[in-house]
Amino acid sequence: MKIYDVGVVGLGVMGKNLSKNIASRGYKVAAFDYFEEVRDKMQVELNDEQDIELFHDIESFTASLKGPKNILMMVQAGQATDLTIDILTPYLGQGDSLIDGGNANFKETIRRNIELSELGINFIGVGISGGEEGALNGPSIMPGGQLDAYQNVESILKDIAAVKNGEPCVTYIGDNGAGHYVKMIHNGIEYADMQLIAEAYSIMKTVLNMSHEEMSSIFEQWNQTELNSYLIEITSHILIYKENGEYLVEKIMDKAGQKGTGKWTAIDSLELGIPSTVISESVYARCISSLKDERIKANKLYNFKQNNNIQIDKEQVLDQLRNALYISKICTYAQGFRQMKAAEVEYGWSLPLGDIAKIWREGCIIRAEFLDEITNAFERNNQLDNLLFDDYFKSRIINHESDLREIVKLSIDTKMPIPGFSSSLTYLDQARSEQLSANMIQAQRDYFGAHTYERIDQEGKFHTEWKK
Amino acid sequence: MKIYDVGVVGLGVMGKNLSKNIASRGYKVAAFDYFEEVRDKMQVELNDEQDIELFHDIESFTASLKGPKNILMMVQAGQATDLTIDILTPYLGQGDSLIDGGNANFKETIRRNIELSELGINFIGVGISGGEEGALNGPSIMPGGQLDAYQNVESILKDIAAVKNGEPCVTYIGDNGAGHYVKMIHNGIEYADMQLIAEAYSIMKTVLNMSHEEMSSIFEQWNQTELNSYLIEITSHILIYKENGEYLVEKIMDKAGQKGTGKWTAIDSLELGIPSTVISESVYARCISSLKDERIKANKLYNFKQNNNIQIDKEQVLDQLRNALYISKICTYAQGFRQMKAAEVEYGWSLPLGDIAKIWREGCIIRAEFLDEITNAFERNNQLDNLLFDDYFKSRIINHESDLREIVKLSIDTKMPIPGFSSSLTYLDQARSEQLSANMIQAQRDYFGAHTYERIDQEGKFHTEWKK
Repeated sequence: MKIYDVGVVGLGVMGKNLSKNIASRGYKVAAFDYFEEVRDKMQVELNDEQDIELFHDIESFTASLKGPKNILMMVQAGQATDLTIDILTPYLGQGDSLIDGGNANFKETIRRNIELSELGINFIGVGISGGEEGALNGPSIMPGGQLDAYQNVESILKDIAAVKNGEPCVTYIGDNGAGHYVKMIHNGIEYADMQLIAEAYSIMKTVLNMSHEEMSSIFEQWNQTELNSYLIEITSHILIYKENGEYLVEKIMDKAGQKGTGKWTAIDSLELGIPSTVISESVYARCISSLKDERIKANKLYNFKQNNNIQIDKEQVLDQLRNALYISKICTYAQGFRQMKAAEVEYGWSLPLGDIAKIWREGCIIRAEFLDEITNAFERNNQLDNLLFDDYFKSRIINHESDLREIVKLSIDTKMPIPGFSSSLTYLDQARSEQLSANMIQAQRDYFGAHTYERIDQEGKFHTEWKK
Repeated sequence: MKIYDVGVVGLGVMGKNLSKNIASRGYKVAAFDYFEEVRDKMQVELNDEQDIELFHDIESFTASLKGPKNILMMVQAGQATDLTIDILTPYLGQGDSLIDGGNANFKETIRRNIELSELGINFIGVGISGGEEGALNGPSIMPGGQLDAYQNVESILKDIAAVKNGEPCVTYIGDNGAGHYVKMIHNGIEYADMQLIAEAYSIMKTVLNMSHEEMSSIFEQWNQTELNSYLIEITSHILIYKENGEYLVEKIMDKAGQKGTGKWTAIDSLELGIPSTVISESVYARCISSLKDERIKANKLYNFKQNNNIQIDKEQVLDQLRNALYISKICTYAQGFRQMKAAEVEYGWSLPLGDIAKIWREGCIIRAEFLDEITNAFERNNQLDNLLFDDYFKSRIINHESDLREIVKLSIDTKMPIPGFSSSLTYLDQARSEQLSANMIQAQRDYFGAHTYERIDQEGKFHTEWKK
């Protein structure tokens, strides 16, 4: 009987492509799906050169694996994951590992890790980014769970991951839900990266009245600068993609969908008390985009129009826009990494922040040159609390913050809302203010609710009878 | 044996004051607390004129109540509430009611309502706003739960509530957790109201270099305008409150505390997909205020200073500021009421939105003249989807939006961050834009993840192979 290195359960696009990726690196893969039609579809695609064996029942599938058994689950997050675990566990024993490669909520992963550990089974939650193509050719991989269980599959994960400068884009993130947590933050940042690019496009199109060829060419130029990234690159492609002689992007409905991970990031930031405002404004921007009927109604009622007749120097505005985008991106990552620092305390992890930036440099959607600078920042100071404190980012902010101010003011005058840029600027000014107006809020809270306050000149908690 | 109209469990400040309030309206109150020292403290405060009887054991306490029994629980939200329910239920039967007057999360209230209904016991979740003073003299009351159970206590609640223009500030909100939900929204709005006032104060103090007497006098003037409200009134008092000859507000640490209801509102808005951005920015502003050590560090590192040397016409800026505050307040309430509309669909309620504005006019922290206009708007159109669509609010926005633009630009130039005002303006411009840049986001999502998109020229879901 042939023995397989790893099992894969769930043979949708991601599971299928990961199976092929693993087999292409010389591992023997046992594959299984509950649904016959999915198995049949997979069977057609298999060729004899690949060491993938398709199993039709769970018993022979699990029996075919070498011990300790490692099974990668590529099934839907939520109930389907719990169901799959319930079906597999009777066939697993001490030291075997279930590896969840879906987009699970990290709190579920923590729960599952604890529940399975009581049976002696390891549970590894793995964030996998890069979509279908990444799954096949090399994704960015964020594994969390029992360290020794991770080590059993480390060589496989390193072999299938994307590679940047000779280094595989995978690193052990931490206990239980840490891998899925970091994937969640990755996705939250992705929301903000996309929103900021979309806002830059809206200024180019509506305020600068640029053609699609011009806009595409500007994004292509930006992609040669420190803004170099996958999302900037595909934006330049999207802008000039034509269908029947017309630019397709303008035919697309401006209602943005979401699958939840950006929202989870925003909710987690609220729960941790960390101001990830660029991410949350990006999530809200998608929400407001979806309320299209209400926008149309309000638009007519107010006879609201963007103002594109402002006298401006186009070249200068484009320079400002590029710089504004860059430092808004710094704010986004500063907030996302600050949120991960807070998560370390709250969830009891020790996250390798510099390495996390490293494994995002290839394979995933937010891959960008920029990430090297984050890794460098953590190499200069592995206790760095906020990217704003790093010299490199500081110099960029100091050089460019006046450009961000000009762009936000331009958006106000032209009525072209850019919530990502605006919230970045507000954040920058709040985060660097020694004194904010929260003393007034504390006074009000003490006035109406006796909530007490701290003082700047004495230690302790104080209450005042304000009504004389 | 004497029979009591209503029982109160939990004799902390709120429970004690509500007991006194109820007794003062001619009802016989049975009072109980687990803790002897709390009971002893209460005993001292009782006088013979009031019909409050203090009980020392749960059995005689519950036996003393007339049927169907109504017990108001004023205990801590969370575990203490569940514990209190567990202790009381053995003494309750079919048709009796537990009334939770704490700040419970509405989802917990829904759960408790369902669990107790299986025992035939009603569970009424009541939002009570107004702090200690309101509890004693008349709070704003938001009850949710079984309608017939509410009707058993309706006369008591009407008698103890605040009164505005002869009408008691209480109305039945809806099933199960609806009352606590509306109280949560009330508190979220309260966060934003306070933040906006604090931002106006920061502009006056730092940009306009005004004295405390001047600032107080301006808030007093504003309180004679359509901004008239409790929070504006106490702000004018706070600003001139002196301790040892110095203004106390400047001695208060600018780190704002929070007890969670604003955060819940922001999280719920994310879950519902409704852009309550002014509330969430207000919650985040409290978060960032709390990171004082980091702000001080960043402040020094960047040598960051607010710029108060801009040439401005103070009288003009004060006019603009008042109008900007007013329309930011409109945005806050428009978002909060829009969130309640979405909650109706999500949680299966039918919320009396116009009446909710009415019962907030007295007794609670956000009481304001402004609320009459919201009631009027819903009386003009009880299907109103968004306050922005109402003629009254529309005329105010049209008249004043340029002032809000000027104030936000001033904040950018002076580096005095005002996230509440800024997010209000961004929201206004987003909510009235027929076309946003989300078509680019949809193109990107389809490019890298085959998430599909809708079109403006055809029905259906589409996917494009963007890489030619």
